[in-house]
Amino acid sequence: MTFHPTKASLNFHDAHEEFLAGRDTPRDYLERCLEVIKEREPEVRAWAFINEEQARIAADESTARYKEGRPLSPIDGMPVGIKDIIETKDMPTQYGSAAYEGHTTGRDSAIVWALRDAGAVILGKTVTTAFALLDPGPTTNPYDSDRTPGGSSSGSAAAVAADMIPVAIGTQVIASVLRPSSFCGVWALKPTVGAFNRAEGLEFSQSHHGIHANSEIDLWNVATEVGLRMGGDPGYPGLYCERGYLPKLQKPSRLAVLETEGWPRVEDYARDAFSEALDKLRAEGVELISRQDSPEVEALEQAISSSIQVSLDITAWEHRWMVENLVENHPDTIGKYLMRHIDNARAQTLEKYRANLKLRAEARRRLQALTQSVDGFITLSATSVAPIRAEIENTRFPTGDLSMSCPASLLGAPSYNVPALAAHGLPLGIQVMGQQHWDERTLGYARWVYQSLTKEA
Amino acid sequence: MTFHPTKASLNFHDAHEEFLAGRDTPRDYLERCLEVIKEREPEVRAWAFINEEQARIAADESTARYKEGRPLSPIDGMPVGIKDIIETKDMPTQYGSAAYEGHTTGRDSAIVWALRDAGAVILGKTVTTAFALLDPGPTTNPYDSDRTPGGSSSGSAAAVAADMIPVAIGTQVIASVLRPSSFCGVWALKPTVGAFNRAEGLEFSQSHHGIHANSEIDLWNVATEVGLRMGGDPGYPGLYCERGYLPKLQKPSRLAVLETEGWPRVEDYARDAFSEALDKLRAEGVELISRQDSPEVEALEQAISSSIQVSLDITAWEHRWMVENLVENHPDTIGKYLMRHIDNARAQTLEKYRANLKLRAEARRRLQALTQSVDGFITLSATSVAPIRAEIENTRFPTGDLSMSCPASLLGAPSYNVPALAAHGLPLGIQVMGQQHWDERTLGYARWVYQSLTKEA
Repeated sequence: MTFHPTKASLNFHDAHEEFLAGRDTPRDYLERCLEVIKEREPEVRAWAFINEEQARIAADESTARYKEGRPLSPIDGMPVGIKDIIETKDMPTQYGSAAYEGHTTGRDSAIVWALRDAGAVILGKTVTTAFALLDPGPTTNPYDSDRTPGGSSSGSAAAVAADMIPVAIGTQVIASVLRPSSFCGVWALKPTVGAFNRAEGLEFSQSHHGIHANSEIDLWNVATEVGLRMGGDPGYPGLYCERGYLPKLQKPSRLAVLETEGWPRVEDYARDAFSEALDKLRAEGVELISRQDSPEVEALEQAISSSIQVSLDITAWEHRWMVENLVENHPDTIGKYLMRHIDNARAQTLEKYRANLKLRAEARRRLQALTQSVDGFITLSATSVAPIRAEIENTRFPTGDLSMSCPASLLGAPSYNVPALAAHGLPLGIQVMGQQHWDERTLGYARWVYQSLTKEA
Repeated sequence: MTFHPTKASLNFHDAHEEFLAGRDTPRDYLERCLEVIKEREPEVRAWAFINEEQARIAADESTARYKEGRPLSPIDGMPVGIKDIIETKDMPTQYGSAAYEGHTTGRDSAIVWALRDAGAVILGKTVTTAFALLDPGPTTNPYDSDRTPGGSSSGSAAAVAADMIPVAIGTQVIASVLRPSSFCGVWALKPTVGAFNRAEGLEFSQSHHGIHANSEIDLWNVATEVGLRMGGDPGYPGLYCERGYLPKLQKPSRLAVLETEGWPRVEDYARDAFSEALDKLRAEGVELISRQDSPEVEALEQAISSSIQVSLDITAWEHRWMVENLVENHPDTIGKYLMRHIDNARAQTLEKYRANLKLRAEARRRLQALTQSVDGFITLSATSVAPIRAEIENTRFPTGDLSMSCPASLLGAPSYNVPALAAHGLPLGIQVMGQQHWDERTLGYARWVYQSLTKEA
């Protein structure tokens, strides 16, 4: 299968119009999704659990609401996949780990509750790497089954890319939403830190719920419908947005081009593709500045130059009590990379953690210092197209290099993967990032960037 | 039973010396605790679950460590009770709710993990009101079984006050550690917001783990040993303290006397006792200022004048997704006050929540504005001694008035209950509060206040 940035793919907003017009129903839409799953799942392996029966019941209820002309929201009837570290009342939550095989909690996490409240159809749980870390799950890249879909939200990105569902929910602590979306060629939002209520998944100060979608319209409809219903993390103001308002395409005046610590590892063809993309934006009149032009950008680059290690160390310290429980209760289930993470957790100290929090706060100040100077930031979402799994399985990053997607996590900044580039017939994502709480504004820029890069010359 | 502020009560630090000297053992200490429990539990009903077998095993292991001269910490061998909303790997976690009868998670929460890591003996789970809200549990006040022990950490305060254990862990979102400690006559710390890692219990931005103890030395030993092991909440610097250092008694130069919104409801005898206490402190040379003397204190009083409603509303919004799960799955288990909380949750909006966060942030700024002016704050911990249960069971506060203990929660400020006063033979707590992160410094003042108020004239 060859990726092209403008290829037709499964969206929901068109179907919503058809439902309203009585020419289609959520139940039929679901059945078409199930057909695609039947066909593609044996190869893609995006799902940890599918609840067809409950999904059909929910789709029928949605169908009835449309018939009565009273859908609950623009996402009423939308089949959604949920990363399997998020609790669902009617399905197991297994964290991609044998230690939690068949584990159920009997309740919906905040985002699942909000999705159902908006009428969405919770179709199933999508594959995650074990505990959203680095040990790969079974999922393959829909464009080439020898390649990784990325991690840790592997199944979420792959299920959307394979047109099994229009939207899936993932999570990102370091690079787990943006990187798989780059490898799989779908839109993604890793929102402002705290924007979406993570409910039970609050163990990490740097984790975010994120969204994968084929269409940025679906993505934003889901973001606003769940954001306004459930609010942000406890103590956070939540996503700033307006119900029913989709940010219009907006040309940025000036963007800062970020190298991140990943730049030396970016493959030549990816660098060329990115460079060509920047030329197109320049040709449209966007001013691009970089570390060479601006001491403020240089200061930000320096502040994010150890994003991965700082993020891994922060996370490891915060994870200690959980992993010690796991070591005691389920020692046989611990994979190689999880064991490295545990070793790293044991090496952390409170002093080091405090120092890392200071580094993170400093990086966020460096970002904020650019508020007046640039409309946003642009970089690649990954150092390459999706790597071949066998070639990376024993490297530092067995689900792909984390470096390009990590800064947005460290910075707590909203960032979109824009599926606008391709190389070797595979997707390569562009990342458009903004200041904290600019989720809405940044989508306008991201949409404009997508259009500029994909329109015929 | 009559309370006197200087009555002998069960502490651990003396026993620790005896263990080191080989004259006592943790196993014998535990057996003495179990004897007291056997005698008093039928009346006090402080426990939701006791695991004698595992406790004996842990106490024997601790005994062996002392024999080898290698205790893990000053709290090695200390029997501790854990509020039953905190997860324990070897006991159920039932949230004081029939909906969670027999519910187990198979893992230790961060604070339980840290306690065990320091050698403490996790003896059992102490009674909480349902979901740490207002519907009372079965626990009675150790000084008068007709009276409330306070809530929501009812069992934790009562078990310590009844000399069943030297220390227990509670939690406070609004008034759930300080108020029961006042009613039961024990020391308590409600620490700086984020000081102790709450692990799975992060649903509320205003919740804190807290400690009940008969001795402030035991209290601080536990605070430092768990604080340094587990750190604070994700993203927070955690408790600032030094291992093995107990803050010395320190006379404050100037304290601000706070009325809080509770002042009009303070009983006359409590007001008299407090007034007499303030006279004693003045006689010792402490300068006391209040809203009448200081525009800054007046501004703080105004900013905390709706502490209870703001706190209840913030909490209700943050709790919505959880309570909706409960309504759907266990409608028959919902008590009257929980139902009020649910109704309130449904009435909240994101806009109102954001406005409440701003009020809270403003109150914290008002507190901070007094950093240079005063060494701390003093007020009562409750409006009265423990009320008779039958007289309050259908009132707004069926486990006692929240108002005096709530401001420290809203402010995220460390606050100690100092069990220095008595009225009608029952305990009445004094509260000594400091700036955020002054947990250690404030203990020095609290110890000095205790000594000044309890020494013979």
